[in-house]
Amino acid sequence: MMAAPIHITVWNEFRHEKTNPKVKEIYPQGMHVTIAESLRKAGGVTVGTATLDEPEHGLTPAVLAKTDVLIWWGHAAHDQVQDEIVARVHKRVLEGMGLVVLHSGHYSRIFKRLMGTTCSLTWREAGEKERLWVCNPGHPIVQGLDRYFELENEEMYGEPFGIADPDETIFVSWFQGGEVFRSGCTFHRGNGKIFYFRPGHEMYPTYHNPQVQRVLANAVRWAAPGGGRWIDSCPNIPIEKAPEKITARGPTLHKPGEQGFR
Amino acid sequence: MMAAPIHITVWNEFRHEKTNPKVKEIYPQGMHVTIAESLRKAGGVTVGTATLDEPEHGLTPAVLAKTDVLIWWGHAAHDQVQDEIVARVHKRVLEGMGLVVLHSGHYSRIFKRLMGTTCSLTWREAGEKERLWVCNPGHPIVQGLDRYFELENEEMYGEPFGIADPDETIFVSWFQGGEVFRSGCTFHRGNGKIFYFRPGHEMYPTYHNPQVQRVLANAVRWAAPGGGRWIDSCPNIPIEKAPEKITARGPTLHKPGEQGFR
Amino acid sequence: MMAAPIHITVWNEFRHEKTNPKVKEIYPQGMHVTIAESLRKAGGVTVGTATLDEPEHGLTPAVLAKTDVLIWWGHAAHDQVQDEIVARVHKRVLEGMGLVVLHSGHYSRIFKRLMGTTCSLTWREAGEKERLWVCNPGHPIVQGLDRYFELENEEMYGEPFGIADPDETIFVSWFQGGEVFRSGCTFHRGNGKIFYFRPGHEMYPTYHNPQVQRVLANAVRWAAPGGGRWIDSCPNIPIEKAPEKITARGPTLHKPGEQGFR
Amino acid sequence: MMAAPIHITVWNEFRHEKTNPKVKEIYPQGMHVTIAESLRKAGGVTVGTATLDEPEHGLTPAVLAKTDVLIWWGHAAHDQVQDEIVARVHKRVLEGMGLVVLHSGHYSRIFKRLMGTTCSLTWREAGEKERLWVCNPGHPIVQGLDRYFELENEEMYGEPFGIADPDETIFVSWFQGGEVFRSGCTFHRGNGKIFYFRPGHEMYPTYHNPQVQRVLANAVRWAAPGGGRWIDSCPNIPIEKAPEKITARGPTLHKPGEQGFR
Repeated sequence: MMAAPIHITVWNEFRHEKTNPKVKEIYPQGMHVTIAESLRKAGGVTVGTATLDEPEHGLTPAVLAKTDVLIWWGHAAHDQVQDEIVARVHKRVLEGMGLVVLHSGHYSRIFKRLMGTTCSLTWREAGEKERLWVCNPGHPIVQGLDRYFELENEEMYGEPFGIADPDETIFVSWFQGGEVFRSGCTFHRGNGKIFYFRPGHEMYPTYHNPQVQRVLANAVRWAAPGGGRWIDSCPNIPIEKAPEKITARGPTLHKPGEQGFR
Repeated sequence: MMAAPIHITVWNEFRHEKTNPKVKEIYPQGMHVTIAESLRKAGGVTVGTATLDEPEHGLTPAVLAKTDVLIWWGHAAHDQVQDEIVARVHKRVLEGMGLVVLHSGHYSRIFKRLMGTTCSLTWREAGEKERLWVCNPGHPIVQGLDRYFELENEEMYGEPFGIADPDETIFVSWFQGGEVFRSGCTFHRGNGKIFYFRPGHEMYPTYHNPQVQRVLANAVRWAAPGGGRWIDSCPNIPIEKAPEKITARGPTLHKPGEQGFR
Repeated sequence: MMAAPIHITVWNEFRHEKTNPKVKEIYPQGMHVTIAESLRKAGGVTVGTATLDEPEHGLTPAVLAKTDVLIWWGHAAHDQVQDEIVARVHKRVLEGMGLVVLHSGHYSRIFKRLMGTTCSLTWREAGEKERLWVCNPGHPIVQGLDRYFELENEEMYGEPFGIADPDETIFVSWFQGGEVFRSGCTFHRGNGKIFYFRPGHEMYPTYHNPQVQRVLANAVRWAAPGGGRWIDSCPNIPIEKAPEKITARGPTLHKPGEQGFR
Repeated sequence: MMAAPIHITVWNEFRHEKTNPKVKEIYPQGMHVTIAESLRKAGGVTVGTATLDEPEHGLTPAVLAKTDVLIWWGHAAHDQVQDEIVARVHKRVLEGMGLVVLHSGHYSRIFKRLMGTTCSLTWREAGEKERLWVCNPGHPIVQGLDRYFELENEEMYGEPFGIADPDETIFVSWFQGGEVFRSGCTFHRGNGKIFYFRPGHEMYPTYHNPQVQRVLANAVRWAAPGGGRWIDSCPNIPIEKAPEKITARGPTLHKPGEQGFR
């Protein structure tokens, strides 16, 4: 039995890499390219990329239809992501597409829509040390890691983190400046698995870090769909199709065959 | 120690009561009035009402500020609820206001925003019998009920119900036509407690039913806020305010004192 | 990339098949053999069996070490399952072994230990019709099923079902006699995935039903471990191994190198 | 409407206070007395105490029957808590009694039974600084606290913490030595609310700390029962009591009126 390769699309806002010399130095082709290359190296996947300034942000129906797991990095231009594309990604997640939301993507429109909460946090840009602790060493997402790993320079994100309560907390971070953060959280909505992973400020070479790359390689495998595609659509079940034989009783609002209100 | 009364606002779309003679007969002043009166009779609360066609749908900042628990009934005009009002209610729920969503409110904008899912279901309007089973007889919401209660005529809602997984399933319904439904579900988002309660098709006298009234009276008590009001706002924590003494290291994207991207 | 076959162990109490002629007629070699054969036919797995009256109930450390997913059917002899074997299975689930608990296994020692609750329900043996509704048609466990399937004769299990709240409710059952039940529920504890599946009274040919067999074949794939084996053991982290340099302050209860209390 | 006072029982192992001079100095009458006094000072409650070496560990059926919330501190003698008392407390929690588990109580028999997991963690006794971050400033348990509070000397508990995933993570701790821990977690099992709160090593004056006392005073209010007492008992529903009229079909294992297997 051959397992089909998982198809990943790495989406990146891809603005700071063009405007900020420091970011450009770290990610000359954009962080989506760095991430995509690291996933290809890990194997078992095919990887495409998409960015904000492409038509339809690179997320056409055809691209999403073939995507098993979407990785999302955005920061300064969340509000430039069009309504229609957010709705399209949302639908695909509910249908079963995996979603890995990175760092400042906590404030992306798609993550906020899936959570239903503020997704707020506290933050500080001091290049301080972050240590990510593994909360469940047996979880698929942390395979190959030790009890913790460190990032010498990172932006701090601190609690309170305004999320819906996660299915499982995979990482909790310790920051040199004294804060903590739930840095790796899993969720599911509809058929889609969602993983939020904190690290990745664009001013530091986080996505070149082998342990971060390992987490991403593990996460896309974990988030890959395990079932069929399905989206619910509020169908009417006419009386004659009820599993048990019944007859209509009482007054009705809807005419036979009418669609419900939306 | 005197417990302050809980302040409830009952929100109703209030359209079918004006246009459909059958609905008008059952709820001459609107179902919000019927619900409000039943809550007042149960005691320990103060109750106001608000409807779609009032300015700001009756949900001004002042009304919401004093509301402990909001009850929501909407059906045919979900898309006429303005963006701003949805956002205002959403914020108050995250701050701690309780929310009781009734029947066709499963498709309301506020419920879908809080769930992040489709909130779809299957349905049939045949006036068939519904039997609501209590899944946890010790839960505050079902106090005073027996093992189950019946509604002689109701609209059928069937699984799959496209919600985020509930904190607790309080009721599951059996329908005469052969379907089942998770008819009472609790959630929390931010500080707000949310209760979805299925019954209440406008063509049947459901909100005159004493057991339904008992559930609503219990539910508003359960959903009342237990803590303070709070909404998160993603504050920057400057380096000099870090709990542990640190100094800046490495490049920075933001200038000191700058707000983050949204 | 070849996926290694998942190794399943089907555990059965295997008493009624020997003492009750009706059960013997339905499952001449025991229901574990019927289940094992159906899983083998579905492919991609290797399957062993184990029964109560074997030494160590057939669940030696070696058997459990190689088991990816354990299926559990017990009914009349829960209290004859030895403490040591319950503890051994429990440890393996927390380490990552999947567990599929069937029907009357709701009252097995291993399921009650994992839930921490009573696992009680109501029941009736009337051979009535059960209709299992799919609550999420995109979930891996329901692939290949329609919106629902029916069992012409089953024992009734009714709510309240005294479980810890499930991660996801996969099936809800409708019974001819008027009850409902959360018939398919997923949980995770430690690294282990757990699926409770209601049908399977020994007096009816439930495990010969193709849709039930399909659910079991899907469920073992879903429950198979995705990560490494790991069990936590409350290790002391000596001061000199703290990630940040610290020195001891204040009085201590434990001598250096001492194990904690258990 | 007068709210009846909540009745609290503070249970303490009460051994180290008698054998270790340092512990005795901090808690001359036992930490249960210190905790009980702080709760009484906060008001709105009546408080009793119980300790391991009393008959039935002070937890007679009468004491538990009147207890709304039980606080549990144990460390060196978990295995001396008798089976029968563990079962009695467990039953009361499922019936609706609140439970606040403190510090080394993570390894108590009652907490492990409720979780179904190892409840393991890592630890170090260095008197290092702990900073507890509030993860949801609107939650009832943290009212009156600032964004965080600090304990100058505490034992370190580190992730991974082997619990079932909490309903809500209320506190996450930062430790000077570099670790992190989910220090305040809520759960519910049956009708009982459970709060695990990490601080409280007996060698340090933690329960004299005003913020710790505030958390405990808030927690007992949060954990107080909101519904009726109920414990499930797996009743048979005879055919003639089925809500829908049915007749027996097919063979039966149980004779009419027989109890089920346990």
